[in-house]
Formats: sequence, structure tokens, C-alpha cells
Amino acid sequence: MYISSLQNPRIKEIVHLRQSRKRRQAGKFLIDGRREVQRALASHFPVVEIYYAPEFLREETLEWMATREKTALEWIEVSPAVFEKIAYGEREEGILAVANSVEQTLEEMLETLPTDTPPLIGVLEGVEKPGNIGAILRSADGAGLSALIVADPQTDLFNPNTIRASLGTIFSVPICTASSEDVVQTLTRRGISLYAALVDGAIPYTQADFTHPAAIVLGSEAWGLSPTFRQPGIQPIFLPMLGIADSLNVSTTAAILFYEALRQRTKGSTVKRELLSG
Amino acid sequence: MYISSLQNPRIKEIVHLRQSRKRRQAGKFLIDGRREVQRALASHFPVVEIYYAPEFLREETLEWMATREKTALEWIEVSPAVFEKIAYGEREEGILAVANSVEQTLEEMLETLPTDTPPLIGVLEGVEKPGNIGAILRSADGAGLSALIVADPQTDLFNPNTIRASLGTIFSVPICTASSEDVVQTLTRRGISLYAALVDGAIPYTQADFTHPAAIVLGSEAWGLSPTFRQPGIQPIFLPMLGIADSLNVSTTAAILFYEALRQRTKGSTVKRELLSG
Repeated sequence: MYISSLQNPRIKEIVHLRQSRKRRQAGKFLIDGRREVQRALASHFPVVEIYYAPEFLREETLEWMATREKTALEWIEVSPAVFEKIAYGEREEGILAVANSVEQTLEEMLETLPTDTPPLIGVLEGVEKPGNIGAILRSADGAGLSALIVADPQTDLFNPNTIRASLGTIFSVPICTASSEDVVQTLTRRGISLYAALVDGAIPYTQADFTHPAAIVLGSEAWGLSPTFRQPGIQPIFLPMLGIADSLNVSTTAAILFYEALRQRTKGSTVKRELLSG
Repeated sequence: MYISSLQNPRIKEIVHLRQSRKRRQAGKFLIDGRREVQRALASHFPVVEIYYAPEFLREETLEWMATREKTALEWIEVSPAVFEKIAYGEREEGILAVANSVEQTLEEMLETLPTDTPPLIGVLEGVEKPGNIGAILRSADGAGLSALIVADPQTDLFNPNTIRASLGTIFSVPICTASSEDVVQTLTRRGISLYAALVDGAIPYTQADFTHPAAIVLGSEAWGLSPTFRQPGIQPIFLPMLGIADSLNVSTTAAILFYEALRQRTKGSTVKRELLSG
């Protein structure tokens, strides 16, 4: 198929999908860029259509397309003018995909986790900036987290900025949304200990034991965590701040905590590069 | 003094200082925002003039100004139109300062470091984005690094975006620029071990010993580190990457490494919040 009309109904639908409300209504979202589309496909995400304008494609995209397999996926060539209409910002990579939003419930997601290692889960409450959620997904992917829960989300999960900042790792890390109450109740019931990162926490993060089933909870920089995560039974941890500032960026805090958990979990094992980068 | 003319020579000079080249020529730079100006003053940075427009000042700035001491510092009130001309982007906090650029050499900076603890130094080579340098300064401040060296800088140290992203911690962390060759030679001569973060490094970062005099070297995301930091004698370390991505953002990598060094250095000590945040 080739589309050159700016009035084509499919093109109009894609433009609509740039709006959060329309994405929710349609149960679909957009994936911009070659690497992101590839990672969605590699993670078996339900990508349904790929739009591309040959004039804008880069070398590595052409190479990848040359080797693609025949699948149910629909590839649609569009004119440069059409691509400019549907592309996101300056991101002129010449390729974007439409995917179905498959949002699992918290229970469903937990059921799919491997049972051979104790789960290590990230929880973000009220984090507003899609860029921060994306950056945290990158760290979660790197540190091998089991899953990420966005509690009381302020933005839709598959916001283009989240996908972009995550470099496509949003497709590899199991992710879901839930209310904060639900997160506390469900994780506690399953024997997963909650560790809440708080500027005024009582336990240095290096003294928390992340080797058992654990969830690391982070709040927004502006508002911190709600009282739901400041209850007895939830361990309040903090990062030492030795300088003049009193807190770090939420994505920085997340990375330090995720990698400390990984360190504790791999300590004593014969750490080989091959094993780690599996 | 009160300035309402857009043609005032001082106002013209400030507008000039928005350009990197003019900052170098004048040996001066600008500090935008109340917190940043306060942190520069608290760190005894040579701030020479403060410009403010009462119409734009926030409550906390007014409170602070009411308690300010009489110093050699010159406070200059300007009209709203003048402030809009000199302000940076949307940052309408109503206050900015002019400071002298005091750039130390590497040797000078190292001479000023405390001698009671082994130095822990961050080195950034070729990091282009001021926002990344600023974010790394925040982590360096938090983890209590002795100093940060920007090797082969791609931008001037006191770029407004660096100051902004650092939240003013650029004034608390000793900082200098130097060539990569100079960094390797000078630190090695002083018995400071170099650890270079490399995607293809050989040593898991948790197995590096950061308790002795140490420097953690980070390269740009786009280009990595130059051959200068890939020599025998410089230890190549890596972070495990368990997911689909092969690297983390440079500021994320920096934070994980800086806090691992801090963890090793405080391990075994009775970690109390008061001691740590002292």
C-alpha cells in the first residue's frame, strides 16, 4: 500500500493518536523510530502497522527492512509530505508504528513473572514527566528488574516521550498501572517487602535487604510520596546527601537503588561479564 | 541603582554574556535564579552584581533579600522590561547575578583538596550536553566527591544550562578543566588510581576498590572514551546490563559509580543520618 493523500483516514487516525485521550479511546499508540519499533517487535508487542517514507530512511533502517520476515504486520509506504504530517517533532527517522495498548492489571502482570528468582519491582508514584519514566525504564532494564508499576499515573503509559526516553526498553520491562492502595495491598499480600525512598527516610539504602522479594518505591521530585507509602510495614529508606543539595533527581535515585539491589543479589556469585550480560 | 533603559551599557553587557565567546572574553558569567545565586554566595563564589526586578520576585526571594547582609556585592534594581531582556528563557524568577569566572588549573585544584580523606574525583571526557554535566554535578555533590574534572571540554564550564541542571551544586563541588593527557599524567603521578567506565570494560564496577585515592572517568554517550583513557594502568570497569539495552545515560552511570564508591568508603562505619548529611 502507498499513501500520498493527507486526507487519508488512516493518516488522520495517526494524527489523532498524538493525543492522549484519543489513544485511550482507540486502545492504540504510536512508536517512533527504528530502534524503538525493533525493540517492540523483539519483545512481541502487538505492533499492527508500520508506516515509512523511503526518502527519510537511514542506512540501518534499510538494512533491517531488507531482512524482515513476512508476518501479519502491515507495512505501508507513505509520501514525504504524509510522513511529515504524522511524524513526531523533529524525529525524522522515516519510520513509525501503530501498536495495540495491552495493559495488564497488576495481578495479571505479577502472575507472568518468573518464579525462579525473588521478584524485584520498581514502583513510581505520581511521577509526572514522561522523560523521567523513560529514563527509569532504562535503568530498570539494565539492572534486570522484574517489573515496573506506575502508581496513580499522571500520564498514559505509552506516551511518545516515555517511549523515546526509554529507548524502547518500555517494551522489555513488564509494566502496568495501579492505584497506590492496590500496590501496597497486593504486594504485601504476596510477601513482597516495600522500600520507600524518602528524603527523610530512616534507613540508609545500603542497609536495606533487597535480596528477598522487594519493591523499591519512588515519588515525584515535586511532591514526594503520598501517605499510602508512609505506613508502618513500609521501610523508609534514604540516600546519603553529603553536599549542599538535599535530594537527587528521581531517575538518578531510581538508578542508584536498582543497581544496589542488583549488587546485593549478585554479591558472592562469580560475576562474569558473559553471565551478567546474558 | 535603578535601571529602566534597555540601552544601558550594563544591560547590554549582560545580554552579551549569554554568548559563550563573550563570557570567555570578559571572564564573567551569569547565574539565573534565587537558589543558584544563594548557593554561589554560600560557596564564596565571586559574585559581583545582582540584578532583580521586584515585580517578578517570588515570596522566598523577598524573604531572603530582607535578611541579606551588607557586603561589597552590588544590588541593582531593574524594570520589568529590562529584566525580560536579560533573563534566560522562561526562567522568570526575577533575579540573576554576574560572577567572575575563577578557573583553577588542575594542579591548583588538587592542592586545595582536604588531605584527611583519600580523594574521590570524577572525570568527564567530551561530555557535550551541559544538562548532563549539571546532572552529574548534582550526584557528585550528593555522594561527596572531592572534585570534578571536565577533560577536553566541549562547552564552557559556567554555561547557563549546566548551572541550571546542577541546581547550583556547581558552586559547591571543586571543578576545573584540563586536557585528557594532563588528567592521566597528573592523577597518576599523585597516586590516584583511574577507573574508566567502558561498555566493553573488563572489571565489574562493584569489584573495583574505590576506598583508595580514586578517579572515576566517564565519556560521552555518543563517543565513549578516547584512547587516552584506554591504556594499561587505567582500570576498565563496566556496569552489568541485564536487559535489551547496552548502556545507560552517562549521568545515570556516574550516579551509580559515585554512590558505589561512597558505599565502599562508609561500609562498616556506623552510618547515622546525622553523620552522613552533616
